[in-house]
Amino acid sequence: MNNNPIDFWFDFSSPYGYLMSEKIDAVAAKYGRKVRWHPVLLGIIFQATGSRPPADGISSKGKYMLADFHRSARFMNIPYNPPSRFPLPTQNAARAYYWLHGQDCALARQFAHAVYRAFFVADRDISSPEVVLEIAVQIGVDRSSLETALQSPEMKARLKDECAQALAIGVFGSPHVVIDGEAFFGADRLPQIEHWLASGGF
Amino acid sequence: MNNNPIDFWFDFSSPYGYLMSEKIDAVAAKYGRKVRWHPVLLGIIFQATGSRPPADGISSKGKYMLADFHRSARFMNIPYNPPSRFPLPTQNAARAYYWLHGQDCALARQFAHAVYRAFFVADRDISSPEVVLEIAVQIGVDRSSLETALQSPEMKARLKDECAQALAIGVFGSPHVVIDGEAFFGADRLPQIEHWLASGGF
Repeated sequence: MNNNPIDFWFDFSSPYGYLMSEKIDAVAAKYGRKVRWHPVLLGIIFQATGSRPPADGISSKGKYMLADFHRSARFMNIPYNPPSRFPLPTQNAARAYYWLHGQDCALARQFAHAVYRAFFVADRDISSPEVVLEIAVQIGVDRSSLETALQSPEMKARLKDECAQALAIGVFGSPHVVIDGEAFFGADRLPQIEHWLASGGF
Repeated sequence: MNNNPIDFWFDFSSPYGYLMSEKIDAVAAKYGRKVRWHPVLLGIIFQATGSRPPADGISSKGKYMLADFHRSARFMNIPYNPPSRFPLPTQNAARAYYWLHGQDCALARQFAHAVYRAFFVADRDISSPEVVLEIAVQIGVDRSSLETALQSPEMKARLKDECAQALAIGVFGSPHVVIDGEAFFGADRLPQIEHWLASGGF
C-alpha cells in the first residue's frame, strides 16, 4: 500500500484553504495516508507568479465569491462566519505553526485548526501577534517561548523557505494539495482527491 | 413543484463550460427543470468586468489547468482531447446557436453539443464559419440559410444582447449557472447545483 505523505499548501487567510483543512486529514486517513501541512504566504506566491487574488478588482466575481465561501461551507457542513477583516497577513500564524511543529506535530495541527476557526468562525484578527499568542496559550503553549520564536531569524527563514519550496513545485494559490506528484487546486477538488486515493490515480 | 427554467451561460471555447454542457440538462431533468442555454463571448465579458482568463500569464497555473481540464473530464466520464488551438473566438458558433434556436429548440441543443464535441473531442477549428456550417449541415440544417444568418444584423444584435444580459446579471466567466437567482460558477459546482435542486436551497 502506498503510504507516501500528502502535501497540503495553504494560507491561513484563505477561505477555501480553511474548508480543505477541515476535511483533508480524515480523507487521507481513510486511505492510510498522512498529510503534511505547509502554511505559506499568498502575497509572496502571487507576487512571484504574477497571479492575483481570484476576484481582484472584479466586482461581480467578488460578490459571487463571498456568497460561494459561505454556501460551500454549508455544503461541506463546516461552520463559517464571514470575517470582518479580509484578507489578512498571516506570517505570525505561519511562523508559530512551524515552530510548534518542531516541538510537537499534533499540537501544531491543533493550533492550525484553532487559527483557522478563530478567523473563519470567531472573526478574530489572526494577523495580530497577540491573537496568535492567545490562541496558542489556550492549547497549552508557553507564551514567552512562542513570542521569542515569532521574531526569531530561524522561523523567518523557515517560512521563507516553505514559500520558496511552494513556488518551486508550482503552487499558485490556496489550497493546493499534492498527492504522489499530482496537484489538486481548490477545496472543490476534494471529490477528485478522494477518487484518486481510492483508485490510485485515474 | 418549482419548475422555473435554469440559465446556463457559457462560451463554446470554455473547457469547463463543455464539461457542464454534458451534464446540466440531465441533472436539471431529475428535478423537473429545463435549462436555457446562453452561449456568450468571454472576450466581451472579460473586457467589461476587468476579468482575465484564469491562467493568464501565470505559467504554473496554466500548466495545472491543462492537466485539470483533462483529469476533470475523466472524473466526470466525459470524452476530452486537448484542442490544438485554444482558446478560439466563438461568435460564429454562438450566432448559429441563436438562429437555430429561433427555428427549433431541440436542434439548437443538438448543434451546441456537436460544436462543443467538435472542439473538445475532434479538435476542429470551431472559430471557422466553414466548420460551423459543416457541423450544422451534418445535423440537417440548411447550409445557405445558416450562412446568411451568420452575417445577419439580427443575429449579431442577438449575441450582443445576450452578452449584455450576462453582464447585467453578474456573469464573469464560464460556465455560470443561475437557479432561481442563485449563481453557481464552474463545472465543479455541479454537486452543489444538484444538492440545491434536491433540497430547494441550502
